[in-house]
Order: sequence, then C-alpha cells, then structure tokens
Amino acid sequence: MSKGALASLAHYTAPIRRFGTSPLARHLVLALGLMAMTALTVPRLQNDAGAWLRACLWCCLGYFAVDSAGRVGAAFRAGTATSHVLSASGLVDILSVVPVPVALLCGTAPPTAWLFAALWIFKLAQDSPGFAQLGRVFVREAKPLASVLVLFLIVLFLASAAMHVVERGGQPAAFGTLPAALWWAVVTLTTTGYGDEVPHTPLGHLIGAVVMICGIATFGLWTGILATGFAAESRRHNFIQTWNLVSKVPFFQTLDPAAITEITHMLRRVDVPERTAVIRRGKVGDCMYFIAEGEVQVEVDATPVRLGASAFFGELALLGDSIRTANVSTTKPSTLLVLDLADFRTLTAHHPELARAIDAEAKRRRDEIQHRRDLAPDDGVAASRAKRSGTTS
Amino acid sequence: MSKGALASLAHYTAPIRRFGTSPLARHLVLALGLMAMTALTVPRLQNDAGAWLRACLWCCLGYFAVDSAGRVGAAFRAGTATSHVLSASGLVDILSVVPVPVALLCGTAPPTAWLFAALWIFKLAQDSPGFAQLGRVFVREAKPLASVLVLFLIVLFLASAAMHVVERGGQPAAFGTLPAALWWAVVTLTTTGYGDEVPHTPLGHLIGAVVMICGIATFGLWTGILATGFAAESRRHNFIQTWNLVSKVPFFQTLDPAAITEITHMLRRVDVPERTAVIRRGKVGDCMYFIAEGEVQVEVDATPVRLGASAFFGELALLGDSIRTANVSTTKPSTLLVLDLADFRTLTAHHPELARAIDAEAKRRRDEIQHRRDLAPDDGVAASRAKRSGTTS
Amino acid sequence: MSKGALASLAHYTAPIRRFGTSPLARHLVLALGLMAMTALTVPRLQNDAGAWLRACLWCCLGYFAVDSAGRVGAAFRAGTATSHVLSASGLVDILSVVPVPVALLCGTAPPTAWLFAALWIFKLAQDSPGFAQLGRVFVREAKPLASVLVLFLIVLFLASAAMHVVERGGQPAAFGTLPAALWWAVVTLTTTGYGDEVPHTPLGHLIGAVVMICGIATFGLWTGILATGFAAESRRHNFIQTWNLVSKVPFFQTLDPAAITEITHMLRRVDVPERTAVIRRGKVGDCMYFIAEGEVQVEVDATPVRLGASAFFGELALLGDSIRTANVSTTKPSTLLVLDLADFRTLTAHHPELARAIDAEAKRRRDEIQHRRDLAPDDGVAASRAKRSGTTS
Amino acid sequence: MSKGALASLAHYTAPIRRFGTSPLARHLVLALGLMAMTALTVPRLQNDAGAWLRACLWCCLGYFAVDSAGRVGAAFRAGTATSHVLSASGLVDILSVVPVPVALLCGTAPPTAWLFAALWIFKLAQDSPGFAQLGRVFVREAKPLASVLVLFLIVLFLASAAMHVVERGGQPAAFGTLPAALWWAVVTLTTTGYGDEVPHTPLGHLIGAVVMICGIATFGLWTGILATGFAAESRRHNFIQTWNLVSKVPFFQTLDPAAITEITHMLRRVDVPERTAVIRRGKVGDCMYFIAEGEVQVEVDATPVRLGASAFFGELALLGDSIRTANVSTTKPSTLLVLDLADFRTLTAHHPELARAIDAEAKRRRDEIQHRRDLAPDDGVAASRAKRSGTTS
Repeated sequence: MSKGALASLAHYTAPIRRFGTSPLARHLVLALGLMAMTALTVPRLQNDAGAWLRACLWCCLGYFAVDSAGRVGAAFRAGTATSHVLSASGLVDILSVVPVPVALLCGTAPPTAWLFAALWIFKLAQDSPGFAQLGRVFVREAKPLASVLVLFLIVLFLASAAMHVVERGGQPAAFGTLPAALWWAVVTLTTTGYGDEVPHTPLGHLIGAVVMICGIATFGLWTGILATGFAAESRRHNFIQTWNLVSKVPFFQTLDPAAITEITHMLRRVDVPERTAVIRRGKVGDCMYFIAEGEVQVEVDATPVRLGASAFFGELALLGDSIRTANVSTTKPSTLLVLDLADFRTLTAHHPELARAIDAEAKRRRDEIQHRRDLAPDDGVAASRAKRSGTTS
Repeated sequence: MSKGALASLAHYTAPIRRFGTSPLARHLVLALGLMAMTALTVPRLQNDAGAWLRACLWCCLGYFAVDSAGRVGAAFRAGTATSHVLSASGLVDILSVVPVPVALLCGTAPPTAWLFAALWIFKLAQDSPGFAQLGRVFVREAKPLASVLVLFLIVLFLASAAMHVVERGGQPAAFGTLPAALWWAVVTLTTTGYGDEVPHTPLGHLIGAVVMICGIATFGLWTGILATGFAAESRRHNFIQTWNLVSKVPFFQTLDPAAITEITHMLRRVDVPERTAVIRRGKVGDCMYFIAEGEVQVEVDATPVRLGASAFFGELALLGDSIRTANVSTTKPSTLLVLDLADFRTLTAHHPELARAIDAEAKRRRDEIQHRRDLAPDDGVAASRAKRSGTTS
Repeated sequence: MSKGALASLAHYTAPIRRFGTSPLARHLVLALGLMAMTALTVPRLQNDAGAWLRACLWCCLGYFAVDSAGRVGAAFRAGTATSHVLSASGLVDILSVVPVPVALLCGTAPPTAWLFAALWIFKLAQDSPGFAQLGRVFVREAKPLASVLVLFLIVLFLASAAMHVVERGGQPAAFGTLPAALWWAVVTLTTTGYGDEVPHTPLGHLIGAVVMICGIATFGLWTGILATGFAAESRRHNFIQTWNLVSKVPFFQTLDPAAITEITHMLRRVDVPERTAVIRRGKVGDCMYFIAEGEVQVEVDATPVRLGASAFFGELALLGDSIRTANVSTTKPSTLLVLDLADFRTLTAHHPELARAIDAEAKRRRDEIQHRRDLAPDDGVAASRAKRSGTTS
Repeated sequence: MSKGALASLAHYTAPIRRFGTSPLARHLVLALGLMAMTALTVPRLQNDAGAWLRACLWCCLGYFAVDSAGRVGAAFRAGTATSHVLSASGLVDILSVVPVPVALLCGTAPPTAWLFAALWIFKLAQDSPGFAQLGRVFVREAKPLASVLVLFLIVLFLASAAMHVVERGGQPAAFGTLPAALWWAVVTLTTTGYGDEVPHTPLGHLIGAVVMICGIATFGLWTGILATGFAAESRRHNFIQTWNLVSKVPFFQTLDPAAITEITHMLRRVDVPERTAVIRRGKVGDCMYFIAEGEVQVEVDATPVRLGASAFFGELALLGDSIRTANVSTTKPSTLLVLDLADFRTLTAHHPELARAIDAEAKRRRDEIQHRRDLAPDDGVAASRAKRSGTTS
C-alpha cells in the first residue's frame, strides 16, 4: 500500500480511533466483557451461546491489550517504562491482560479461567481521579481508623469466646468451635445478621445484644472519623485544584495575597464541555462565574458577545435582583470558577476594592450594550429584544 | 343560572375550593388513594369491597386530574406551558394522571393497571422544597460519591468471583453461577444479610468477613462525604434564604457590608402562621427575633403593642436575665429572622454600633411602657400586671 | 406520738428519704420494676414466683405514685399544677402511675395489665437533660429530614409495586399482595434483611440490589443531616451553658466583650462532685480550670491552699512544661470551666492582656509558696515535699 | 560461666532481644497464640495436633509473662509498681498471664481453660495510642450519647411490649414472653435482622417498620454525635501533638504568638523511619516540611546536603511551579511537621514576615548551589545532573 493510501486510511479511521480510546468506549467494552463473563458461568447460557460469549470475551481482551500496549508504548517513548509498569495504572493494565491467557495456557478449564476477567473491574478505578482523594483520607486518619479496627477485633474475640462457652452445649454445630463462633461474631458485629447461627439461651441473647450495640457504636465512630477526615481533605483538595486556575485570571492578580487566598478557598472549579448552557435567562441566579480556560458566548442582544479566559459573568444577578437576564453558553470546553452568593457577599464586604472592580466592569458592559443599541435603533426586533433582556446576565 | 347565582355559589364554595387546593387536602387524597390501591391487591379485600375501592381510586384520579389541569392551565395562561410540562412538577402531574387510564385502555387487568397509582407517591416530592437542596448535595459531591460507587463495584465483583470459586462445589444452587454469587455479594456488602445464601467453608467465611468489613468501610466513607456536602450546602442555603429578607429590614441597612454579611450567616429564617405564640412569658429565652414580613402583638401590658415588618423583639432576655417578660404572638402569617444568644454576643462584641442601636430601642420601649403606665395609674389591674411583667419581653 | 418523737423520726429517716428521692434510687426501682414485669410474662417464672413478682411490681408502682404525688404537690404549692400536668414530666408521671390500675380495674388479666409497666421506661427520659438538645436538632433540621423521609417513601412504594409485579407469579405468599411487598421493601430498605421474603428471579434480584443501595444512600444522607445539625446545636448549647457561668467569674469581666465572647465559645463546663480529684501530680496536663462555683483544695505543700469561686488553677502546666506539679481536688460540689491547651494558646495570642493577668497570678502564687517555705525551713518533710512538687500545678 | 562469656552472650543475643521486645514480635506472637487457641477448639485439629498447639500456647504465654515481668520490673525500679499494676497497661498484663494457669490449676478442662487466652487480644490495645483519643470522644460526648441510649431503651421496651401483645397469639414461641420479644426488638432496632423471629400479622409488620426506622434514626444521631465529637477532639489532639514540636523549631520562634498559634493549628506531625524517601524528584508537590527532630539528606547535586532539626525543605514546589526538583530522604528516624499548600498560602498571606523569611532562605540555597557548581565546572556528570535538577526541591 502506498504512503498516501495509508494516510487517507488514517484520516478516515481517525474518528473511530478517537472514540476507541475515549473513556465511554472503555466503559462500554468493560460492561460488555463483565456481562459476557458473568453469563459464561450460567450453564444454560454457556450451552446455548458459549461460542458467542467466548468470542465476545476475546474481543474485549484484545481491546484491553491494545489499550494497555498503547499506554506502555507511550511510557517507553517517554523513558518511564519501568515506573509506569510499577504504577497503579500499569498494574491494572497487567492484571486485565495477563491472567486469563496464562490460566488458559496452564490448562485451567475455560469457564474458570475467564473468571479472572473479574479483574477488569479495576479498569474503572483508572478513570476515577477521586480515588486518590479517598485514599488520602484513609492515610491521614490511619491512626484512629486502626484504633477502631483494634476495638472491633477485641469485641470480636471476646464475644465469640463467650458465645462459644455459653452456646456450645445447645448448638454444637453453630457454636461448638471457636471459628464458627467467630463467624457468628463477624456477622453480628457488622449488623449483617444472616440468621444461620443464632443464640438460643437467655445469656446468649444478652451477649448478642451487647455485640450488636458495640457494632453500631464502633461503626458510628468509624463513620465519624471518615467524615472528619473527608471534610479536611475536601477543603484542601479544592484549594489545590483552584489555586493553579486563580493564578491564570489576571483580575485576581490585582488583589493582595490575603484576598487571593480567601477567594481561592471560596471558588469551586467546574469543567464544562463545549456548547453547554451555563446560565439561562429568567432563572434565579445565586452564583457568578470566572473563566479560567475556554470561552463563553453571552446572548443578551441580537449580536452575542464572546468572553474569553480571565473574564467573568453572571455578576448582575448577585448585584441586583437575582434573575438572570441573558443566556450564557460555552463555545469551547471551558474551566469555570464558581463563586456562590454567600461567598460573594463575604468577599466584597471584606475587600471593597474587589466590589468596586466588579461594579465598574458591570457598568462598562451596561454602557456598551446601551451604546450598541443606540447605533442600531431601526432594528425593531433587536431593540425590543434588548428592552426585554436588560443587561449581560 | 343567573350571574348572581353563580357568584353566590362561587362565594359559598370558596372555602371548599381553598381547602381542595391546600397541601393538606392533597396529602389526604394521596394517602387515601395509596391505601385503596394497596388494599386492591389483597384478594380478600378485592372480593369484599372491590367496587368501593375502585370508586375511591377513580375519585382520587379525578382529583389529581383536576389539580394537574389547573396547574397546566395557569402555565398556559402565563405562556410557559411547554417548560411546565417538561419540568419536574409537570412530569409528576403526567405520571400521576396518564398511566392508569392508558393501562386500562390497553386491556391490562384492573388490579394490575391500578398498580401504576404507586406513581402518585411522587406527588409528595412536589411539596418538598428540601428536595432541591438534597439534590444539590449529590451534584456537588458527585465525584467522590462516584468513586465510592466504583469502590463498591470493585469489591462486589472480586468478592463474588472469589466466592463462586470457593463455594460452588458445596452449594451449587447458591454459588454455582456468578449472578447468584453477585446477589450474595450485594446482600452482604450492604449488610442486609438475608441469609438465603451463606458461605459454609472456612475460606468462604473469611471472604464473607472481609466483604462485610469492606461494606462498613465503604458506607462510612459514603456517609462522611454526604455529611461534609450537606454541611456546606446547609450553610449556603441558609445564606440565600436569609439574604433577601435581611435586605428588607431597614434596621440592618445602617450597618456596614461586612456586618450585614456576618449577620446574614447567623440569622435563621422561621415562617410562623397566623395567631401563633412565639414567646411565652416566664420561659427561658435564648434568642431574639427580627420581623421580615408580617406582624406580631406584644402583650406586656393591658394594651398590647403591635410590631410590624423590620421591628425586632425578644432582645430584653438577651440583654438582662434570660427570662421572657411578655407574651408575643403573630397576628398575620409572618416571616421572622431568629438570632441565637451565642451569635448575638459575637455580633454585638464585633459591632458595638449594633449593640448601641438595640440598647437604645430597648430603652425607648421601656420608657414608653413607663409613660403609658404613668398616664393610667388608676387602672389597678393593668398596673399590677405591668409590675409583674416588667418590659417588652 | 408527740411532736418531738415525730421530729426525731424525721431526723433519723432523713437519709432514707434523701436516698429515696435521688436519681440512683429512681433508677434502681425502675430496673427492678422492669425486670419483674419482664419476668411475669415468662410462664415458668409466673408459676413459681408470680406472687413475689406482683408484690415487687406493686411496690414499684407505689414508689412511683409517691414520687409523682410529691412533684404534683410541689407544683400545686407553686401554683403551676395545670402546666405541670400538661408538661412532658407531668405526662410521664401520669403514664407511669395510672394505666396499670385502670387496666386491672377494667378487668384485664393481670399479666397483660402489668405490660403497661413498660411505660415506666419513660422515667429514664425525665432525668436526661440531653433529650431537649437532641429534640432541638430534629426540630431545626426538620425540613431536610422530612425530605429524606419522602425519598424513603417514594423508593418504598415504587420498589414494592415493582417487586409485586415481578415476583407474585413465583412466590404468591411473599409478594402476592402489595402489603406483603411493602413489608419486604421496609425490611430491605433499612438493610435489616430478615430473609423471610427474598426475591428469586433475576429481575427481582436487580430491584432488590437497587433498593439496598438506595437504602444506604438515603440513610447516609439522614446521618449527614443529623451530624451537621448536631454540630451546630452542640456549639450553641455549649455557649448558653457557659455564658451564665462566665459572667460569675470576675477575672473575665476585665476583658473586652469580643474577648469574653471568644472565651465563652472555648470554655467547657464540667460539674465535679465533692471530694473528687481534678488534677493529679505527675500527670501530663493539657488544660486549665476556672472555678465558676464551689471550692477546690490545692495540695502543693504541707499546708493545702483552698481556692474559691472565680479563681483558676492548672495554668502552670500550660505555661511551662506540661507536667502537673500539685494535686487538686474539690472540697464542695463544684462547677468548673475547662480551657484546653489549644484554645489557651489561641486566646493568649489574641489577648495579651489575658496572658499577662494569668502570668502575674502564677508568679504571685509561686512567690507565696516560696515565702511560706522560707518561714518553715526546719520542717524537713514539708521542705522535701515542696522541693519535689515545685509550684501549684 | 565467666563474666566475659556472659557479656559476649549478651552481645550476640542483643538483636534477638531487641526484636523480641519490638511491637512486631509482640503482634506475631499474639497472632500465633490466638490462632492456636482458635484451632484448639476444633475437635479434628485437637485430636491431630493438640500437643503441638498446647506447646505453642505455652510458649506464647511464656513470652507474655516475660514481657509483662519486664514492664513490672521497670515500674518497680522507678518506684511506681502499684500505679503500674492498677493502670490499663498493668491490668492487660495481668489479664494476659494469670487467667489461663489459674483456670488450669482450678481443674478446668484444658480446651476451656485456654479460652481465657482470648483476653490476649487486649495486648493490641497496649500499642494503640489512638485509643485514648477515641476514649476522650466518648467521655466528652457522654451526655448526648447517654440520651441516645435512653432513646434506644425506650423504643426497645415499648416495641417489645407492643409486639408481645400483638403476636403472642400466633407465634407463642417467638413472642410468647417479653424476653423473647426484647430479643426481637434488639435484633430489629440494630437492623441486624437475623430472621429467627419475624412478625406475621399486619399490625406486627407496622410495629416492625416503625422500629426499623427508629433504629436508623437513632443510630444516625449516634453517628452524628461521634462525628462532631471526633472533629473537635482531632483538632485538639493535633494541636497538642504539634505544639511541643513547634517550640523546638527556632525558625518559628521569631514569629509573634498569634502566628505561632495559627501555624500550630495548621501543621501536621509525621513520624518517618530511617532511610525513607520523603520527596521524589519530578512528582507534584503540595506541601513543605519542617524538621522537628532527626535529619534528612537533600540530593539535588553530586554532593548531597544534610539538613538537621529546625531546618525546612520542599518550599520551592510551593513558591514556583509545583514539581519537586530534588530527592529528599531521612538519614535518621525523624519527626517532620507538614504544611499543606492551602495552609501555606493562608499563612504567608497573613504573615508576610514568614513569607519573606522562607523566600530569603530559598534564595540563599539557590545561590549556594550555584556557587558550588561554579567551583566544580569541570565535573561534567555533576554539572549535567545539576542542570537537570535545578534547586533544592
């Protein structure tokens, strides 16, 4: 095949390749693969459609192999092949591709070998940036969480030993050995309560009641620790996410450092895809937006205004009555910084210079709109429209 | 019928119509309808009172149809018919009226067709303004919540695949297929624990114990995220609710913006119906009230004093000892802004001008009461009453 | 009997009466009564010891009757009989005394009539001041909690209607009627999971899994709301509790209002009974104490020093190294205000005048101790003791 | 044996003794002992390997006896034997050593006597400093937690009495006596739901549903209280831990007290073992470190720089772009104070003098590195390496 033919082939297959590497495609393949793997364990489906299911599984495996190879190749070119393979993402790639073929080569029966496809579920974690955040909560609160686990173990052992002594006479099958009593204790302490092993004596009931209440108390503590840890981590994560963006907005650079730090704590990052409505005219507005990256289009008039990075919009609803007076939508994938009404009030109260700057810009915009209207007074439609809509947002 | 007769009919049926469109009536009809629908599925009741139950259901359906038509009509007159039908409220109206008749027309058996009346339960959500607030918590914390769900799915798949391998030999019915093992995993991971599928081998017990503890850990994280999100949302929601009211109270307008923002965070909005006691003499008082809308009546003396919008009351209990010295009740439906003792102290410490303004008003009131007493010294009852009660609250 | 004999009888029975009205006695009688009532429902115990149990129950009832009569009498003398009877405490008194005799008079069988003694459990609530606090959390967060309940009801009805349709064919007993399906939905949505009704079809399993996850999500939200509400209520409750005490400590009155408000937020009220150790020499100290009411004894030397209301102690451990240098115990029932190390640092950093005042007092004490030692140099034991212990705490 | 031989024996056995007293060894022995104890209750294992298991248990008991004796001996030498024996740690020592031999001497059958080895699990708590922290949460929130327990008891008693009345006719075995009904109520209220006792009547289902929802509500409150308490305790615990370390870092001593208090709240203590990487070149950095104790090695150049106590590092990633430019690892066991990006920004915004001091030190370091490079321009490898790595971190 000539170079030109290859190039034109590459050109025509580009959308397919782009879709093939998108998270959506990965998730679809993942869902298909897991369903096929699940179906393969059902004897009836295995008999009826075993060949189709296996074909489907091989396709999914191939897709994951190509996907992983692409990532390894990119890492190799960047000279970080070793660190990539040892990273969480690299391990997931290996776990999703290697085990099934190895098991099949080792002579495991196909339905059992394909069970290793359950490891594909880790692919979900590859696309979840929030995982690192949850992990940090566990790391930071490791000590108190470990204490709760120790408490759990202490209750577990004491309760099962006591129950073994109390109930082994009446129920040798359920409480005759300590491992069986431990199983009861775990099932009870986590309030799962299968009911396969239940105490029958009054003393056993009393121990059971204490274990259940201990379980609730322990996991209340566990939840309390995680809630505290998550609140701190969430605040910190938001700051780090916002800080880099704030430094890109020139408007904030005129403020003193204390105000910048304060506003960084208040802003919330939102990623908006292309051609998405951010503000709708007539709705109640309780926040304003700063553009960190991208571009939006403000439809206040016949001729829409475009605002680029470092501009802001939606401030009129916070300054006057809270009704939006314009439609605003993105024209490019944009990253916006959202400032809620409550924080806007606090901020402008503490930093009057910020309030003045926003007021001045709002006034300038209103004048500009007025000016444009004066230039085109004979366009009846635009004029009436302008009268209805007021100013920018 | 003449126009006058119609008018007088409209006049006499007005209270009925007013009751008919009240939330109480809607909830009563809803409860009645759901109970009739539930009863219709019980064969014994269906045989004994099927006709009555069906009549009752048709009445409820009629009520909801009229109710929905009223709302659609109002939207049509306001020119927002399309957006109303597509809104959550419009969809609820459609879901509550359309499915049952359609199912009956399609030839579904009546008891089954009436099951669609279960959709009426959505009517409850129509009157719950708090729903939007809960929804915002989920939207804001979407990323970490999604991560927890991914964690849940990973544990789910790995645990069920492992359990399938370990237990399928001994219990082919319960763990012989992966779907069955997945059912066990969901039941265990959510700590529901039906007990219909229980592992029997030691290794199965170990996997089960790990899954239960993972379940507790996962949902502790889930709760922690929701707690953090709700705390932030609650603070923001309160500010937005209070801000519009604060701007209506002239007393606050004399303060500088920082103080207004601070007080807006501290105030709590309370809606009080007509003729309801707000303060009772002799009780311990730990808050003061600002009137945003409505009117209250202060019974400190023989002649009660009326206070309208933007006045405040209940401050004496915060300034002196904490015993209320007057009865205060609403004379109109009122919206009050409550300021707790702790916040009152913080506020007056930071803004002495506010403390002075409240002190001056309190002094003016005490003098006025004294003055009135001096004018009517021969009214023994009023005098003794005044002596007992002191000043306004 | 002569008046003197009566008086001496009253004198000798005083400790008994005092014990009889103490919370401990009330709780003992309550525990005894509930145990007797529980035992009376067990046929074997009823046959063997029915008479004794009934006698015991009558005694408890008599005790509660006397106890309630005392409270009603006191309220009658104070002229608040009506409001007392209608108050929560008055209702508990009525519920604990009236139902059992009324049931017996109405001819109910004694074992059933005595079941009304279960209402005695409300007596526990009479001594719990924390109940009002929990109640306020529910009142304040009523709106979002109601929304969660509505969410719960919506899931409940939709899930049970769906399950009824899906499973009624296979399991007419468990899902054949909507009430039965509703029972399944409640048991599943609260993750109780009895296992008496379990879906068997794949679609039923899917609905069940969704219901369980909805249950977890709903109650995570519920817990989050209560956590947020309790945090706010706890902060407010602490302020109100502390404020009245702070106003009794002259030391704080020299501070400006902002500092008083700040310190009131930081202090924590602790009620200590008579003759209880507050500080032990040699332990690590991380807080200091202000005496709001009562008296303590500082054993730093041979001659212990007594400190009364408005004094403070334990500050040396915060100023120098963190080891306590004296034993401090109460000589009367005391109310102390505790200031933690972290808050002490914050406070003294913001209010240097407070730091100076505490420093000056600490220095004065050290000098006084030194002075006393100089006056008694020949008391070897005291001297060595003083050398070991350093200064006040 | 001569003294020299003893000394050399002591020399050679030192590593063994050191390992023997380490937490790792203690945990290994504990795990072994508990597993042997558990295995001894299984008849099959007892028959096959009973002698080995008992030998293993005696070894573990001996280890714990020696371990405890060492602690008691140390306490005896320090003159605190009595207080040690009465302390939590002393009681754990007694509970782990005494019960088993006493039970064997009293003639209890060995498998039963060895069940007292379950008390060894308390050894886990001895090494958990976090336990005291959790305990303080319970102590501080004792009042509201007690109220929740009272609420729990009230629901428990009323529900079981009601259920006993409603269901005793149909199910005499499950609800015929109040103790049986109480068991049902505990199992249901904690949402454990064994399913051994389930109501069958519609009224019983209604009571059951109410009990389940009460259970969820109660434990939501419980969790909320613990979350609030833990958040406060965590903040306080962190301050106390950090405060002593901050006072050791001369760099902080130049700040005014308000700034020191603020920074103490923000710092987080981390204990790092010897030869552990703290910062890796090329990673994203979002915190800086102060060395409270120990020493680290900064590998920015051919010649690594060592930083001792009171130095700081990692600040360049916070000042410039967020990429680490050096490897930093500990050379001794070190205690570091971590300052997160968000807190660093807040701190430098409020205390410009701190920002200036850190800037000056960073500049000094950059110059020093530059100077060293100028002195050794002919060392090609070092030069290229220096070019790649930039400055300290």
